Order: sequence, then structure tokens, then C-alpha cells
Amino acid sequence: MSSHHIVRDDQEPALIIANGLACNQELLGQLLEWSPLVIVLDSAIERVLELGIKVDVLLGDFDRGFDPNYYKESQYPIEIVHTPNQDKTDLEKAFDYLIARGIPAANVVWATGKRADHTITNITNIVRYRTMLKIVILDDHSKIHLLPKKFEKWYPKKTPISLIPIGEVFGISSKNLFYPLQNDTLTIGYKTGSSNHVIEDGIVTIEHQKGDLLLMECWD
Amino acid sequence: MSSHHIVRDDQEPALIIANGLACNQELLGQLLEWSPLVIVLDSAIERVLELGIKVDVLLGDFDRGFDPNYYKESQYPIEIVHTPNQDKTDLEKAFDYLIARGIPAANVVWATGKRADHTITNITNIVRYRTMLKIVILDDHSKIHLLPKKFEKWYPKKTPISLIPIGEVFGISSKNLFYPLQNDTLTIGYKTGSSNHVIEDGIVTIEHQKGDLLLMECWD
Repeated sequence: MSSHHIVRDDQEPALIIANGLACNQELLGQLLEWSPLVIVLDSAIERVLELGIKVDVLLGDFDRGFDPNYYKESQYPIEIVHTPNQDKTDLEKAFDYLIARGIPAANVVWATGKRADHTITNITNIVRYRTMLKIVILDDHSKIHLLPKKFEKWYPKKTPISLIPIGEVFGISSKNLFYPLQNDTLTIGYKTGSSNHVIEDGIVTIEHQKGDLLLMECWD
Repeated sequence: MSSHHIVRDDQEPALIIANGLACNQELLGQLLEWSPLVIVLDSAIERVLELGIKVDVLLGDFDRGFDPNYYKESQYPIEIVHTPNQDKTDLEKAFDYLIARGIPAANVVWATGKRADHTITNITNIVRYRTMLKIVILDDHSKIHLLPKKFEKWYPKKTPISLIPIGEVFGISSKNLFYPLQNDTLTIGYKTGSSNHVIEDGIVTIEHQKGDLLLMECWD
């Protein structure tokens, strides 16, 4: 899975490996197949290197007595990015790093599972990057991304689709979903569009007028 | 862990075992120690019975070719509650069942992990039960509950405390938290109070004026 001899044009999605629950090897293998830029958050690098993955960027506040310089030789060339700012999570800092480099998209793994505060913060904070970075969070049971005002994609029949409003979302309408939405409002905690599914093979259309709406494809 | 010879006054918290990721045995053992009423959601019963737990109530829509009557004899006495309504999740139906029985509180396990849509829906939906049921969601890394307008509790120094707004929460103030809040507003997706911690052994006070604020105690 070595990637450091690849010449990249930085237009492919980067892969961010966060510090939550590890995903299965098959998912990780699929995401590594196109030799993305690999960014690892803080002490997750210990678990990542055990998997034989070449890391390009190691980013974190390194506040737990952990020495990032140890990896400078074994992972040469590796960029070490020290981000001590406590106002942001390491995941947000990784997004900021990619934006500064002009990379347009990121897949994120290991950002869920384990601590519920990290899981919910990692998932919901992607909404603030709407115009700056195309983000997809993946784990063994879920694929999550923010919807544009008008979303259209082909899905097979019965694909599970959950629409999760981050806050309040207005004017939501759908086509080809089993529980249709028609200019509806969804509100986190009160009315969500969880556990919907695709009626038949074909284009699903989801539009909304205002607010931040996540689409989650999830499976058991 | 058998509980069916216990006479309960229904004032202790019930235990709801949902259908997500199983928690560790130690946590489950602690929660079962006081012989709570045990409610299991749908096909999770297969995994629960393997652990030798006596189930009092089996609740679900049973829509996946699964026969709840099979458990009537082996778990006698057991109440089977068929809840086909698709407008609510099985967890919400279990909350409604407890409210109808006049039970004031519930601990919930196996409600997180696995599918992100279920995790986020289960965690955030507890806000709508504010006045009806005292709910605590627990997993191997987290303890989650809704805060009253004024919350005071003794915590040891350095206890991690995350404040997660479900929507927008106004007028938040804290005492004895490392990152203090002073009439602040938190907004899910934009500004949350994740990864705070207690300054010193003693009472932590968290007040808010409007909105739904979750407290999460989480650990790695």
C-alpha cells in the first residue's frame, strides 16, 4: 500500500485516518487503492503503521507524551504538522490543512465508534465545510456526506437512505424514496428522516431550501 | 441475572437493550445488579439470551421474519409488545411503553455503535422525552443524558465533560469547567462544547436558558 513514489495532482480525495474505531480492512483497502494522500491524526499512527500503510502527513496536538519525530525516519518522507490550537478538533485541523493545500475532497475513516462525543462532533461538524471541501465519512456500517441544495444520484432499489438534519432543515422534497418528503421540515431531535429507502432502481432526487442536511447510507 | 421473582415497585430505572453494538459485560452486569425491568428491542433478543439474561418485555415491529412467540415459553413470563407503527423507532416505542406504565426512568444500552443513522437518531431523540422519562444512554465509552435548565453534580477533577447542543442552545453558563461558558450559545455542527473537563474535585454547575443540551461523559 506504499504511495510515496506516486506523483499526485492533488485532485483525488485525500484519506484522513482519525483516532476512533478502526474500520474493516476491505474498506481501508478500497480507499487506499487509488494511492490517496494519507493523513493520520495524532496517536492513531501507532495503529495505522501496524497495518503497513505508508503515511504522508501526521497531524495533531501530540499532547499525550507522544513523540512524532520518531516517525520521521521510518516513514520518510513524512510531513509532521503540529496543531496545538485547542479550539478545533484534530479532524477539523486536517480539513483546514487540505483546504490550504488546495485539495478539493477527503474520505474520512476511524472518525466514529468509541466515544459518542467524538462521533457526533465529527459527523456534524462537516456541515461547516460545505463550500470548502467535499467530505465523506465512512465506517463499517455507514457512508455519510452533506447534501447540496439539489442532489441527484442513481441508486439500486431498497438502498437504505437516512436524512439527518443538523439543526433545522426547511423545504425538503424527495423523489423515489419510500417515505416521500414534500416541502417538509426536519429538526434534529424532533423529526428526522431516518430509515427511508429507495423505491426502485433509478435516480433519487432530494432537494432542500435551507439548512444542513446529511445523507447517510447505512447497513447492518 | 434472573429477575422474574423480584417484586418491583416500578420506581427503579428500567433497562432497555436496543439493537446496536453490544456493550461490555461489566457495564451490563452493573446495570442488571438492581434487577431492573428488562426490555429488549426486536431481534436483539437473540444476542441477549445468549448472555443468560432474563427478559421481561420483548418489543418490536418483528418485520424481519422473526417469531416472537418462540420466546413465550423459554422466557416465561415475558410480555410481547408488537409495535408495527413505522413513524417511530423501536427505542421510542420502548420509551412510550415505560411512560404508559408509569416508570420514571430508563438506562439504555446497545443504542450506539454500528449504523451511524441509528446512533445519531437514538442519542438526539431523547430530548423530546424531557418531561416524561429520565433517560441515560450508556456504552463502553460514553454516558449520555439531557440536562435540566440548572444542573449541579459532584465530579472528580479532570472528568471529561462534553456539552452537545441538539439544535441551538442559548444562555449557557458553567462553573468548575476548564473551558468556562458564560451566557454562551452552542449550535450543533457549528459550535459545540465537546472535550471540556472538570477543573477540581467538587460541584460542577451547568445552566442554560433555552434549547436541548446533552451532557456526555466519555472516555477512551
